Amino acid sequence: MRIDTPLRDAIALVETPAVLIEEAVLTRNIQRLSGIATQAGVALRPHVKTHKSLWLAGLQRQAGAAGVTAAKASEAVVFLEGGFRDVTVAYPLLDRRKIARLLAAARQAGASLRLVVDSPASVEAIAAEAALATYPVALFVEIDVGLGRCGIAPELPAVASLVDLIAQRPFLSFAGLFSHAGHAYRCDGPAAITEVAETERQLMTGLAKALRHAGIAVPAVSVGSTPTVMLARDFTGLTEIRPGNAVFMDMTQVALGVATRAEIALSVIATVVSANATHSIVDAGSKMLSSDQGPHGSKALSGYGLAEPQADPSREMPLVALSEEHGFIATGNRPLTPGERVRIWPNHACPVVNLVEALTVVSPDGALCSRPVDARGCVW
Amino acid sequence: MRIDTPLRDAIALVETPAVLIEEAVLTRNIQRLSGIATQAGVALRPHVKTHKSLWLAGLQRQAGAAGVTAAKASEAVVFLEGGFRDVTVAYPLLDRRKIARLLAAARQAGASLRLVVDSPASVEAIAAEAALATYPVALFVEIDVGLGRCGIAPELPAVASLVDLIAQRPFLSFAGLFSHAGHAYRCDGPAAITEVAETERQLMTGLAKALRHAGIAVPAVSVGSTPTVMLARDFTGLTEIRPGNAVFMDMTQVALGVATRAEIALSVIATVVSANATHSIVDAGSKMLSSDQGPHGSKALSGYGLAEPQADPSREMPLVALSEEHGFIATGNRPLTPGERVRIWPNHACPVVNLVEALTVVSPDGALCSRPVDARGCVW
Repeated sequence: MRIDTPLRDAIALVETPAVLIEEAVLTRNIQRLSGIATQAGVALRPHVKTHKSLWLAGLQRQAGAAGVTAAKASEAVVFLEGGFRDVTVAYPLLDRRKIARLLAAARQAGASLRLVVDSPASVEAIAAEAALATYPVALFVEIDVGLGRCGIAPELPAVASLVDLIAQRPFLSFAGLFSHAGHAYRCDGPAAITEVAETERQLMTGLAKALRHAGIAVPAVSVGSTPTVMLARDFTGLTEIRPGNAVFMDMTQVALGVATRAEIALSVIATVVSANATHSIVDAGSKMLSSDQGPHGSKALSGYGLAEPQADPSREMPLVALSEEHGFIATGNRPLTPGERVRIWPNHACPVVNLVEALTVVSPDGALCSRPVDARGCVW
Repeated sequence: MRIDTPLRDAIALVETPAVLIEEAVLTRNIQRLSGIATQAGVALRPHVKTHKSLWLAGLQRQAGAAGVTAAKASEAVVFLEGGFRDVTVAYPLLDRRKIARLLAAARQAGASLRLVVDSPASVEAIAAEAALATYPVALFVEIDVGLGRCGIAPELPAVASLVDLIAQRPFLSFAGLFSHAGHAYRCDGPAAITEVAETERQLMTGLAKALRHAGIAVPAVSVGSTPTVMLARDFTGLTEIRPGNAVFMDMTQVALGVATRAEIALSVIATVVSANATHSIVDAGSKMLSSDQGPHGSKALSGYGLAEPQADPSREMPLVALSEEHGFIATGNRPLTPGERVRIWPNHACPVVNLVEALTVVSPDGALCSRPVDARGCVW
């Protein structure tokens, strides 16, 4: 519960459903991340899949971010066209049409482009287009440090073989090693997350050392994930971090012990539209909050967010079910009143942003402004 | 598994991830629904929240639909501006700004507008704007027939009292009774769904009879939901149906016994981007498939859709987890190959459409065309 008159007035005013960004909290989150990077002596290239906003990436750049990381080629194109000249795409690209479009946008922006690969097929597809475009691309080799998603096993021969293939291809260079410890979202608390971060660091720096020992230069050792970045105790040997969610935080991060409620910058403002004997219904459903119960399919939280009626913010209640345009708050025999406002703290902020055209930003004095979600729905 | 050379060639060609609509299946689905309405002697006003497409609503109109039903005011505005002159908004509206914009769009289109209410507050908000706009609005009273979402209990005094309030307000008229038996999605099979439909019919027609007995004219008795419409045995006394999902169908409808696999018109085409010892990863995650395991938070299906590798379509495998841009297929020790195509049958088609700018439509001869999702992201 936060009591803040300009904020409460703004919440009463906004048209619902709205994705509200509290600027004061956002600013602190951006500064905190920059502080972590500075103190650790690593570069910060935040993952923009969380906000998909040129304005917000600009704030991160002003606070010291060296560049941005994008989820897909199409998302990267939006940031290249939006004036970002240091762009990493954290996705194994294979489709030459997509790579060609990405390279054209990078050339137009005069940008430094870094991609990730985990298969010879991906190296060859990028090599072919880089040669056609005569444009340089730096390739990270992605290492699977435990999520079991993309990346190859952290074993020297396989990694060295991909690095070797990269070295043989004109216009390609080896950027370094790349990982995402998304399995940290399956941890049961801060201590386990710190351990995941340390294991990742040791795997990645050990592999970098082995490559260097074999005579291969490793320019960067890049790791990601909000939980591990926030709770890591040691960054020695790493050169770069790529957290995404940390700019907003959400109830998953609170449940994991990564953030406090006061550190969540993103909420959804909804209106009660109906009420019955057991549930009150709000105008935010799965097409606003998404059905995510947590990242990577984690189900650490039951329900679909926590609702805070503005008339009585200390009365917190979970959203227990969602239809597409309706959220169900279990109110028992104390129904809310149609027309009243609730503030909802989503489980997972990232997919929420992708569902709206614009973010509603509230400044500390209660002024509201709208910021486009520039890279919304960039699926390719 | 369907073997069809033009279709397979089209699937190989399309850029992924793509929401593919098979035109031949779509046409059959549209005709089947129109046939049900004609045979039952009821009007068909399909729910457009499923497709959000002017083109597709146009096909439904050509096949005999009397009008369209929209999920929210903003969605209705898109269809009013797109030339639809018989529009129902299946949502209790309370915000006068939204109502004013909706009325302005209805006036511009010269449209007949029907809204639903379940509280005096909603009646009064609509009455105030209708009077300001001097534009007629017909109001349904929504009845809760078991979903426990919106609507009032099916009891004569409460319903008559709302009808009476409507009758007292200039520019408002009573459209009739309105229900959505979404709890049919919680049924364990066709027999139980038929029973939900019959219970709904008896409740609704009984209430209409009681109102008429009290001297109140009841122009329409309108029911919705794909499962109940497809499996109802009797429509006597009903005047209108509003199914949405039936235009596409999905794995939830198959699991419920409402549709067969051959009746699903919507699939997602994805590419394998990485593979490890246990899972193959495709380029469609929760930002493409949504995290819905079923409508209204139903979890009849485990996983997030069924994947059919195009190289071996009989090898069906569930998507067991989703990251935002990655789908995890459990391939055991037979990994798929990066670059190969998979066709994914989503659990719930409606939220998938809302995540893309356009649908990729494939005609029976394999020609591809793109159709915009006109009302995508209409949250207000």
